[in-house]
Amino acid sequence: MNKSVILVGNGGHAAVLTDILLQQNRSIIGFTAPENQENRFGIPYLGTDEVIDSYNHTEIELVLGLGTTHVSHMRAKIFNKFKEKGYMFSSVIHRSAVISPYSNLGEGVQIMAGNVTEAFVEIADNTIINTSSSINHDCRIGKHCHIAPGTTLSGNVTVGDFTHIGTGSTVIQNVQIGSQVLIGAGSLVLRSFGNNSKAFGVPAKEVL
Amino acid sequence: MNKSVILVGNGGHAAVLTDILLQQNRSIIGFTAPENQENRFGIPYLGTDEVIDSYNHTEIELVLGLGTTHVSHMRAKIFNKFKEKGYMFSSVIHRSAVISPYSNLGEGVQIMAGNVTEAFVEIADNTIINTSSSINHDCRIGKHCHIAPGTTLSGNVTVGDFTHIGTGSTVIQNVQIGSQVLIGAGSLVLRSFGNNSKAFGVPAKEVL
Amino acid sequence: MNKSVILVGNGGHAAVLTDILLQQNRSIIGFTAPENQENRFGIPYLGTDEVIDSYNHTEIELVLGLGTTHVSHMRAKIFNKFKEKGYMFSSVIHRSAVISPYSNLGEGVQIMAGNVTEAFVEIADNTIINTSSSINHDCRIGKHCHIAPGTTLSGNVTVGDFTHIGTGSTVIQNVQIGSQVLIGAGSLVLRSFGNNSKAFGVPAKEVL
Repeated sequence: MNKSVILVGNGGHAAVLTDILLQQNRSIIGFTAPENQENRFGIPYLGTDEVIDSYNHTEIELVLGLGTTHVSHMRAKIFNKFKEKGYMFSSVIHRSAVISPYSNLGEGVQIMAGNVTEAFVEIADNTIINTSSSINHDCRIGKHCHIAPGTTLSGNVTVGDFTHIGTGSTVIQNVQIGSQVLIGAGSLVLRSFGNNSKAFGVPAKEVL
Repeated sequence: MNKSVILVGNGGHAAVLTDILLQQNRSIIGFTAPENQENRFGIPYLGTDEVIDSYNHTEIELVLGLGTTHVSHMRAKIFNKFKEKGYMFSSVIHRSAVISPYSNLGEGVQIMAGNVTEAFVEIADNTIINTSSSINHDCRIGKHCHIAPGTTLSGNVTVGDFTHIGTGSTVIQNVQIGSQVLIGAGSLVLRSFGNNSKAFGVPAKEVL
Repeated sequence: MNKSVILVGNGGHAAVLTDILLQQNRSIIGFTAPENQENRFGIPYLGTDEVIDSYNHTEIELVLGLGTTHVSHMRAKIFNKFKEKGYMFSSVIHRSAVISPYSNLGEGVQIMAGNVTEAFVEIADNTIINTSSSINHDCRIGKHCHIAPGTTLSGNVTVGDFTHIGTGSTVIQNVQIGSQVLIGAGSLVLRSFGNNSKAFGVPAKEVL
């Protein structure tokens, strides 16, 4: 049986996750946030993240509800902090996502509605694959990434850790995108980009 | 039980709606058009729109089959004319559309195949949300709009009334698009646009 | 009952097809390739394409597993060669593709996950319609084409034979694209292009 979850965060991304969890009849104990806020689903506020320590790490799972719109280490920090304390992060996958049984998903991966993930795709821990995205065969996506809504990664695309691929982007086959890369929204990626680069446009060019 | 419907129009958009209605085993009485035309599903021609008055408004529903490719008041005129006479417009939603139970849809909304509509989205009366579109959390879309195929609206995008978002467009989070706005096909919308503006391109710029 | 199939090819596109076939419990006899290679699903190597002649054409079907990234006659050559010998090519359609019962698909058509194909669409023999694509009402697509992932064809678009529409492209309504045309990835097609043209960009322009 699935364990009850605590949701870290209370913004728009957390709302999307809550929607999925409720459709899956997952039990949500409550949410954490820097201060008490209204929750639109009526989920109770538990306190700041520190309150999680009062729950036994074998009895609950965490869901990381913070969204990102650029390269950010915030999600990684929270993920790693609670992993070190022994907590598990629940993966959250919308029922409509079409995920190949020959793909391989890490811990705490979040895959939103309308996604296609093909054979031999690997998605590492704590990465967000957002709505209506298409991750084609043999793509390998690192940890703590965000592949934003409406993005297409053709076959055999590699993406490092902490990388953000902006909304509505298209990446052609065999391209390698490094770690901590920001690809701006609406970009067309025709070539590889190394670690720490920022690129955008049609075709995407590096911003120095 | 669902009421029988009369389809207003006989073009390509009407054909898509008919396909959905037939898959849902809805009974279609016939279609209206300025003159008698062949219907590819074998649905009978009833006459011009005036023939609708001869049907009791409590016994049938209307489906507005006119498509649009730009800002147009035609759909609104027909919608309002028959609403004033007491007729209801049936919403038509393809079975494959993934619509959050926490979204809110107005009367006569048409949502085509492959769409994703997330939590806390509001879509007002008589708006078309076309194929393979992605409407992310907290978007609010006005009346009589057309969100064309393959469009991505990121989270918390606002769209006014009568607005047309062209095929394959991408709109980033938190953008506000006014009423009677035309966003050209393939546009990347990175900023807000006020009422009555026309914009297109990557990134979209206003055409004066 | 479906016949057992032989897969021609062993690359990434063949892997995607194999994934679909296995999900449909199709029996795969083996694959052909220029030389013996490892197969990631454990499917046996049969030999070069010539080995197919040793199977009775009434007892098996072929699945053409070669992908393309540009205009290519390779798939057509193999298709025609084995058709002349009496073999049939199996269509391969992912269970998640949303295909109108009022569309018309040729022999050996391959439709990947997340596709939408609307009413009165015609797709001719041996064409690939890749992931998360949207083929709207009344489109007519020729033989031996590849409509790459994430592509949107609006209503009433015509595409000739051997044409490649690149990943993430958008084509507006009523456009006519000829045969042996290459539309580059990420293109926005606002006008028609004749046979043998190459075009790309936003909007797409011909490369002479």
